[in-house]
Amino acid sequence: MKTLGYYNGAFDEIEKMSIPMTDRVCFFGDGIYDATYSRNYKIFALDEHIDRFYNSASLVEIDIGISKEELKKLLYELLSKMESGNHFVYWQATRGSGLRNHVFPEKNEKANLWITLTPKEIMNTYKKIKVITAEDTRFLHCNIKTLNLLPAVIASEKAKRAGCDETVFHRGERVTECAHSNVSILKNGVFKTAPTDNLILPGIARAHLIKACQKLGIVVDESPFTLSELFEADEIIVSSAGSLGLGVEEIDGKKVGGKAPGLLRKIQDEVQNEFIRETET
Amino acid sequence: MKTLGYYNGAFDEIEKMSIPMTDRVCFFGDGIYDATYSRNYKIFALDEHIDRFYNSASLVEIDIGISKEELKKLLYELLSKMESGNHFVYWQATRGSGLRNHVFPEKNEKANLWITLTPKEIMNTYKKIKVITAEDTRFLHCNIKTLNLLPAVIASEKAKRAGCDETVFHRGERVTECAHSNVSILKNGVFKTAPTDNLILPGIARAHLIKACQKLGIVVDESPFTLSELFEADEIIVSSAGSLGLGVEEIDGKKVGGKAPGLLRKIQDEVQNEFIRETET
Repeated sequence: MKTLGYYNGAFDEIEKMSIPMTDRVCFFGDGIYDATYSRNYKIFALDEHIDRFYNSASLVEIDIGISKEELKKLLYELLSKMESGNHFVYWQATRGSGLRNHVFPEKNEKANLWITLTPKEIMNTYKKIKVITAEDTRFLHCNIKTLNLLPAVIASEKAKRAGCDETVFHRGERVTECAHSNVSILKNGVFKTAPTDNLILPGIARAHLIKACQKLGIVVDESPFTLSELFEADEIIVSSAGSLGLGVEEIDGKKVGGKAPGLLRKIQDEVQNEFIRETET
Repeated sequence: MKTLGYYNGAFDEIEKMSIPMTDRVCFFGDGIYDATYSRNYKIFALDEHIDRFYNSASLVEIDIGISKEELKKLLYELLSKMESGNHFVYWQATRGSGLRNHVFPEKNEKANLWITLTPKEIMNTYKKIKVITAEDTRFLHCNIKTLNLLPAVIASEKAKRAGCDETVFHRGERVTECAHSNVSILKNGVFKTAPTDNLILPGIARAHLIKACQKLGIVVDESPFTLSELFEADEIIVSSAGSLGLGVEEIDGKKVGGKAPGLLRKIQDEVQNEFIRETET
């Protein structure tokens, strides 16, 4: 198959799949998700993504209904059916089904499990990107990977219309994260990245950047930084499952970064090499 | 039919309906909705609900694709197929379909139109309810009736577990609204209700309460009020499409209100009589 959509045991190409109108995703976006990439039929950092998925579920009291091991096995089983081994591997759990009613369904109502596989590779890590900034008006649960993503949709579209790749959110002066990535900076040899509170998603790629810095002897400062610090940083790094650590060359039309290319390159090599190594045949 | 689910021209009982996995509701909750009640096959305050629906759509740039008149006609057509004339009349539009991608689909991708009809009557207006309070951690677009409702789901469940009917949200000291209702107070003969900024939904029932007060010569003060004002109010009124104006007797386990029963009753009679009058056979 070219793409695969899975729902509670049934699967087919995504475009051929349908789901019941009673799924609580339809009326409330009542679910959580996680996603990563595969290469050569190896799913990158799967344990970390699975752990975060179960943590998101527990924070909104969704009972996924199967074990981490079973889910991992299922993902690999489905991936093995695909023509290519390089995929965007996505899965979500929604809070059961029923006629529209805000309160949770009865206890015996199991979560619905969704999986999609789409042929895709991670972005070129060394590509420079352009971003815009926007006030962060999202809810205060950004640490949970929920399906309530309308603000991320709007911000992504806004970036696209400006000819850019991402939107950096800020609450007043404080930079939080991007529409679907984290953002970190390099300044005077220090890697600075916002702490994992309720304002940002604890990104797996972000965690790998921190690990890379620690390995390279680069000081890591997990504390909030401001818009001014962002604009004046030596380098700005945007990271997500699909972009291990991209350098930013322009924010809101102004040239930025580019003042520590050697250090940036070292970190990028580290995360890129890890990805290649872990997904080798 | 007992219930009816409609999706882009197809319809059946809600439980028998399915929707494509590619609908953007599945991954982003990317849509907006509105809802009201019918009685005797007459849909209450339909023009106002339709106007708000198109306004929500325009605020998130969803092109509904049909006119207000066509939508109203369709709602009445579907309602006429039902065994009873008393329904919860619900409709939503989602931002088209496609493989998961944050940015909007191409221009020619039309919104998907959903309608559900479920047999239901509005709550007894004179019933007293109990509520709890909770910090309002939702996004800053509460004026738009979107499908990003996970915080409302959680708050509703929390109220249910406390044996209550609703959750009153507050941002710090300032009361905003409830999980799926507005909240207003009566104090010294004045009807006080939060202004329609981005922190609350511009409730149609709220607007009808204001109209009722104006007709009765009761002063209306549309300005923010605090938690202390809520607890010390003469009466507290919770309103939504399904509850025209319910008095609150308990908040967080404390007895409240009940100090202006005559005035409350006058307002309730006014909105209740309007509902009955407008939905007469």
